Amino acid sequence: MVPPSDKPKQFNDNEFSRIAWLLGLFSKIPAPAPVRLGIGDDAAIIKSGRENWVWTVDACVEGVHFDRRWLTARDIGWRSFHAAASDVAAMGALPMAALCSLALPKHLEPAAFRGIAQGQALAARSLGCAIVGGNMTRASELSIHTTLLGATDRALRRDGARARDEIWLIGQVGAAAAGLLVLQSVPVKHQTPAQRWCARQWRRPNALVAAGQKLRSLAHAAIDISDGLAADLGHLTAASHVRAVLDTVALDQALGIRLHKAARELKREALDLALFGGEDYTLLATGPARKRPNEARVIGHIEVGRGVWLRTGNKTRRLSNLGFDHFR
Amino acid sequence: MVPPSDKPKQFNDNEFSRIAWLLGLFSKIPAPAPVRLGIGDDAAIIKSGRENWVWTVDACVEGVHFDRRWLTARDIGWRSFHAAASDVAAMGALPMAALCSLALPKHLEPAAFRGIAQGQALAARSLGCAIVGGNMTRASELSIHTTLLGATDRALRRDGARARDEIWLIGQVGAAAAGLLVLQSVPVKHQTPAQRWCARQWRRPNALVAAGQKLRSLAHAAIDISDGLAADLGHLTAASHVRAVLDTVALDQALGIRLHKAARELKREALDLALFGGEDYTLLATGPARKRPNEARVIGHIEVGRGVWLRTGNKTRRLSNLGFDHFR
Repeated sequence: MVPPSDKPKQFNDNEFSRIAWLLGLFSKIPAPAPVRLGIGDDAAIIKSGRENWVWTVDACVEGVHFDRRWLTARDIGWRSFHAAASDVAAMGALPMAALCSLALPKHLEPAAFRGIAQGQALAARSLGCAIVGGNMTRASELSIHTTLLGATDRALRRDGARARDEIWLIGQVGAAAAGLLVLQSVPVKHQTPAQRWCARQWRRPNALVAAGQKLRSLAHAAIDISDGLAADLGHLTAASHVRAVLDTVALDQALGIRLHKAARELKREALDLALFGGEDYTLLATGPARKRPNEARVIGHIEVGRGVWLRTGNKTRRLSNLGFDHFR
Repeated sequence: MVPPSDKPKQFNDNEFSRIAWLLGLFSKIPAPAPVRLGIGDDAAIIKSGRENWVWTVDACVEGVHFDRRWLTARDIGWRSFHAAASDVAAMGALPMAALCSLALPKHLEPAAFRGIAQGQALAARSLGCAIVGGNMTRASELSIHTTLLGATDRALRRDGARARDEIWLIGQVGAAAAGLLVLQSVPVKHQTPAQRWCARQWRRPNALVAAGQKLRSLAHAAIDISDGLAADLGHLTAASHVRAVLDTVALDQALGIRLHKAARELKREALDLALFGGEDYTLLATGPARKRPNEARVIGHIEVGRGVWLRTGNKTRRLSNLGFDHFR
């Protein structure tokens, strides 16, 4: 569950203010001793002996998160599983076990049902994670709620960023949004190699578990990029009470040649796709320069202050931190 | 996730055969060491140090599991939470923490959203359980997927029943089904006290956590009654490779005066409601006579063999163990 941004106070019909309201309601419930971190990060943390269990749930709803015109049943299963695993990866944890709750329309073809489950099983294998149960119910629309338990000796949180930290991007950002545009607007036979690559990023994301493991001893804070770079960096800065300054040139370089190529062909700005797209399921972290891992690209830095800012030459402007909001 | 019954082998469009198929698919995925029990019981078991974590997910979908004509928003939240907690109770575990995944129609009134969350919060408090996170998504129909972690030193399973065990009923069975009939067919102002009591059993179930705790050291096997007595006893006998013989007279007496009264008024057989109803969220256990807890009513016994049987006088007939199946 994403935390409240640093703005909404009043209840209105906006996802973030609803979450802020839920946070207030649920945080008043007395928690048993093992619960170390409740709502407000990628996953909750539960202490057991020397282990930290991190625990998350993620939902994929047909027509909201996916469209069967652009995904095979196996893609749907794979994608829903890696999206949930990405939260666990961002906490520096190894996925251990999953429960899959399926809501299936009565007339869903048996092949589609089997394909979704096979996609989930493939994804679980790819992550070394067991599927230990679930639930199956009839519904009028297809949806998948995946809940995952991961284990870590040290959980990475989003509230640890400090002034002077570098901002690290690990993995691609923006390619999934470009890929969705490709699938929506370019017939398969007309897709260029760069476009096909972007489409694949959207269809088959990979939770960056190994990178998350490595970050445990290096980063001060981490979050997975699922709502778009601007929104997720906004969640991180809000939780850490700091300000992030992104460097346009560094970010633009970090986006990679295939995204730039696909964006040009789609007549979009690669930077916009990265900042306001979503569903990349890659990682954003902050930490000191001397600890930067090889695979991290520096795209900005952390300062004292609030919010997410974009620096272009001498100009610095504040970005909205709301990003992709299903309820808008 | 309910286990396969002892029948389905071939894939067809039936919930139980789908589950059997999933069981085969998911059980082939290598499991990390801490996973002790996967699909096939009320909840999965994960070992951590000296603790056993039991873990379950349960879904409530509008139009399938509930209808807002008969439930307030708070009832919906309460009910979904206790339904999930009932699986944890049946494993002899204490609910510790929950994640709530909500799928909300775009035009759901803010008051309904708040009511559901308040019902969940009330239920969590009633169980001493924290709500540590969740997920919120837009959808065309309202659904709630609740995943719960519980802790126990010794997990009760459904596969431990032995010949010569007594069959124990703890809590009501059949009243929820009667209550749903009342809500569907009797206007509020014409409801009798017995009918109102049944309706309340359906609207506001209570997971029997304390009873589950007590059963840990007494029972050989336990399961929660959510699909109806016949179906859930069928799951237990299939997992334990035994046969259950229910005694009609003993069961009839155990059903209680209010259910009998309401059933008579509704022109239904109380026994049918108990056997083939559902959504009671009470407990069924088996164990030796000398260990029977005070609150348990003996309704039959376990023998060598297979299936669920009903003994009336000298006649014994086999019951279908399929019960309430959302996909039929």
